[in-house]
Amino acid sequence: MATEIEVRDSLQQVIVPAAKRDIVGLNLVRDVSIDDGTVNVSLAKAALSGDVQERLTSWTRTVVEKLPGVREVAIDFVDASPHDLNRIDRVIAVMSGKGGVGKSLVSSLLAVLLRRRGHTVGILDADITGASIPHMFGVTSRPMGSDTGILPVMSASGIEVMSMNLLIPEEGSAVIWRGPLLTRAIGQFWNDVLWGSLDYLIVDLPPGTADAPLSALQTLPISGVIIVTTPQDLTTMIVRKAVDMARKMDKAIIGLVENMSYLYVEEIDRKIELFGASKAEAIAESIGAPLLGRLPIDPDLARHCDRGDIESYHADSADRLGEAIVAAIAKQAVASDGQAQ
Amino acid sequence: MATEIEVRDSLQQVIVPAAKRDIVGLNLVRDVSIDDGTVNVSLAKAALSGDVQERLTSWTRTVVEKLPGVREVAIDFVDASPHDLNRIDRVIAVMSGKGGVGKSLVSSLLAVLLRRRGHTVGILDADITGASIPHMFGVTSRPMGSDTGILPVMSASGIEVMSMNLLIPEEGSAVIWRGPLLTRAIGQFWNDVLWGSLDYLIVDLPPGTADAPLSALQTLPISGVIIVTTPQDLTTMIVRKAVDMARKMDKAIIGLVENMSYLYVEEIDRKIELFGASKAEAIAESIGAPLLGRLPIDPDLARHCDRGDIESYHADSADRLGEAIVAAIAKQAVASDGQAQ
Repeated sequence: MATEIEVRDSLQQVIVPAAKRDIVGLNLVRDVSIDDGTVNVSLAKAALSGDVQERLTSWTRTVVEKLPGVREVAIDFVDASPHDLNRIDRVIAVMSGKGGVGKSLVSSLLAVLLRRRGHTVGILDADITGASIPHMFGVTSRPMGSDTGILPVMSASGIEVMSMNLLIPEEGSAVIWRGPLLTRAIGQFWNDVLWGSLDYLIVDLPPGTADAPLSALQTLPISGVIIVTTPQDLTTMIVRKAVDMARKMDKAIIGLVENMSYLYVEEIDRKIELFGASKAEAIAESIGAPLLGRLPIDPDLARHCDRGDIESYHADSADRLGEAIVAAIAKQAVASDGQAQ
Repeated sequence: MATEIEVRDSLQQVIVPAAKRDIVGLNLVRDVSIDDGTVNVSLAKAALSGDVQERLTSWTRTVVEKLPGVREVAIDFVDASPHDLNRIDRVIAVMSGKGGVGKSLVSSLLAVLLRRRGHTVGILDADITGASIPHMFGVTSRPMGSDTGILPVMSASGIEVMSMNLLIPEEGSAVIWRGPLLTRAIGQFWNDVLWGSLDYLIVDLPPGTADAPLSALQTLPISGVIIVTTPQDLTTMIVRKAVDMARKMDKAIIGLVENMSYLYVEEIDRKIELFGASKAEAIAESIGAPLLGRLPIDPDLARHCDRGDIESYHADSADRLGEAIVAAIAKQAVASDGQAQ
């Protein structure tokens, strides 16, 4: 007779179509019990429409019936909110007081690298009015859901994505929202989206230090913050505001990333520092956080982002940065374990 | 005996120290009358402390007494709010849904060019949480004022500047404010700042389409909007949101500026399109507004901004852009006169 573990393993074959993820990964399996030859499976109905529940029922039955000794399969659906089902190990926020320095880029590269290493990863695009994550990943599907929740959209390499741009009719439409609505949207992305089990959720914060980043820092159980800067003094000054805000809200700073550090021009085999000499080390020291890496301006990366296939981008600088971030997260995790959820 | 016009002309020698501007330019002279040999001057006390009122009184007396036939000078102060005193011909907003594309840069270059042409110009930095205008102009003085208003700070070349960064203790401090406070700050920058008489007020809007840009578009009598973009598709998409917002709020679009269009590398005499081929013409056409110009990435400009002396920057591309903007503003002014403010 099949064991409970074998039943649970088999359920990994049951996929929620709109999320492209199995019901175990989505944490929808609430209970499995075996009584004689009867297998009882309780599934949560969060974010699942009636149609989807029916499909999952028959799919689950088909899968479990194939196990040895199973005579009958009983499937029921129980109430549960996405928030109760989500199990997220680390919530990493990427921020910078200033816009256009590459927060979304760093968020995406980090997610891609973590995914390549086999981790389960999601990106919560908290930049409600200037969302750019879906474009970089070429993700355009509308998130599906029900009145009990909403399913994230899956990228090509298997990264869960939730962004306001997936919800609006056309990506160029303006989201003309005041603060309280922005706050509510970010809260919903956290509480009402069925992320399921994730090793990492990367939160791409909007620029500034007003409602949206403030709400994200207050609402989400962020375990660490990555600060993005560029070599311009002007950026540095505004980045300090972000660090100041993170500190005031008791968020641990994982480290600093300098973007647009230089351009390598092959014809003359020279790095041009477009925005002045790097000040990354000095800033890192002054904010008391490690310098995680420097990213050059890379026209090839810009092309990948524009084409929506950032997941197929490869470059040494990005890999090195990713590894440094992963190491810093691990280090910070060791330091904070016991107090992080 | 001196005429009223001669008295008013002489008052241009009376400077409000903290604003580095004369009382005529600031529109503080409310009334001048001459009765026999007695000259009566009414000044508004908006934004002037008691001390400043005393200094202006004695200075005004000294200046007017020098005029022929003046036996006595009577000076009184009347109540008036900055909002009642301000006379601003054109309010031009610079916007872009996306951060970091160069709104502040375009705002500043435009102000500098208008000033070089002899216009009176102010910059209202509406980016409350990510203010960068004072840094670019090297302006650090604290705005002075009284309980009736606040005086802008004057740049080296004579541009009035008001920015949140002039009001906070240290430019790297975070302004952790929610929407209603941002809205109020922008309202105060408009209503409570004594801009005086200006040919142009340039409003540097923050990124996004939430509270701050929304409030600015709703509150200020903006006569036209300049949209800033970069060659990245990603930027284009978010810039469309800004255009969409401006249109929904019935604001005339003066034209489009493409920033970071290319980098000219002297050694190989070649322009490198770092962020892909320009899409500026296509975007301009699709939003039905003229393309005002393309600005390259110029390390020299970055240095000027970082050092705080953008007013001494000269480049053909910037001059051409400035001229195109001035021409477009004039054209738009002709088209809209009668309905503006």
